[in-house]
Amino acid sequence: MSTAIAGPEIERLIQLLARLPGLGPRSARRAALHLIKRREQLLVPLASAMQTAIEKITVCRTCGNIDTQNPCTICADPRRDPSVIVVVADVGDLWALERARVINARYHVLGGTLSPLDGVGPQDLAIEALVTRAHASDVGEVIIALNATVDGQTTAYYITDLIADAGVKVTRLAHGVPVGGELDYLDEGTLSAAIRQRTPF
Amino acid sequence: MSTAIAGPEIERLIQLLARLPGLGPRSARRAALHLIKRREQLLVPLASAMQTAIEKITVCRTCGNIDTQNPCTICADPRRDPSVIVVVADVGDLWALERARVINARYHVLGGTLSPLDGVGPQDLAIEALVTRAHASDVGEVIIALNATVDGQTTAYYITDLIADAGVKVTRLAHGVPVGGELDYLDEGTLSAAIRQRTPF
Repeated sequence: MSTAIAGPEIERLIQLLARLPGLGPRSARRAALHLIKRREQLLVPLASAMQTAIEKITVCRTCGNIDTQNPCTICADPRRDPSVIVVVADVGDLWALERARVINARYHVLGGTLSPLDGVGPQDLAIEALVTRAHASDVGEVIIALNATVDGQTTAYYITDLIADAGVKVTRLAHGVPVGGELDYLDEGTLSAAIRQRTPF
Repeated sequence: MSTAIAGPEIERLIQLLARLPGLGPRSARRAALHLIKRREQLLVPLASAMQTAIEKITVCRTCGNIDTQNPCTICADPRRDPSVIVVVADVGDLWALERARVINARYHVLGGTLSPLDGVGPQDLAIEALVTRAHASDVGEVIIALNATVDGQTTAYYITDLIADAGVKVTRLAHGVPVGGELDYLDEGTLSAAIRQRTPF
């Protein structure tokens, strides 16, 4: 990889592509070649889509979502229930919930979870803004939709404490058997939660 | 995937990224988010590297390699042996041989292999140009470095026939046990070739 095979321009393209998640050095070379061979069908449109992203995409000043408008489409949508805020760690989690079309609420993107080991403290996340939003008169419920990991749950408890005096209902996602999941493959924590939180049939 | 979650600009970026080899719809979303979050460190340089590729990369008129100069760096290099032409199907194969630094020759990129099932005939490949090059007075050997697949070998035989009267030596890559390969995992064809073409120890 240290030799420039086809000039520094192609090498640079390969190196940058290799920094995308899911692409390693070998697949980045394949991707670069794929792009160069499909110049008009793929390389030109992709370069242009990236340029548009550079020029237009901003972070929503209210919720931290990314969008081409600010406030974002979700925050600006009058059909969204303003009384419910779904707290997520990352925009990818917001996208996942939107794809599932499960809730017509607004969001709050923290920008990560508390992680003392990685040096991520409360000041690195959009927690203060969430506390302010939770105290707004029109908010009735905060749904904490963080990963069921140690960091996610630590962050959930931390936030719950901070907004305890806001007079809003604080809920979190249910634990249980994933739809389509096989019991045999589930860990004991999940099975235990699924039994404890069993629902009437 | 049919819903635009965050505006058509981001959806378009995701859709184009999903057309890269090695990325599916899900990893394309992750890649798009990764790019948007690393705007200055990754998105801007990658868009710029692509723009450079669009403006500068051409196909070498002699050998079919891609490069920012024409004839390409390899064809223009006086230290390359002009008497040997290595025939490859694709630029990716040329890159693989260059990475291995095994030969200091020039190349000829066919642009694929003959494949009647996929409708690829001789007129779709740079075969005529190869025949012309093989007849040049300074060429002494043509090494056929095509995949050891049915299509690759069919193409090899086809080319060998066409350049039979050019008065050049025609060779092909050796078959055998890959370095680091375990006999137990090799197919019978490879083992049989490795025995037939055994070399003195």
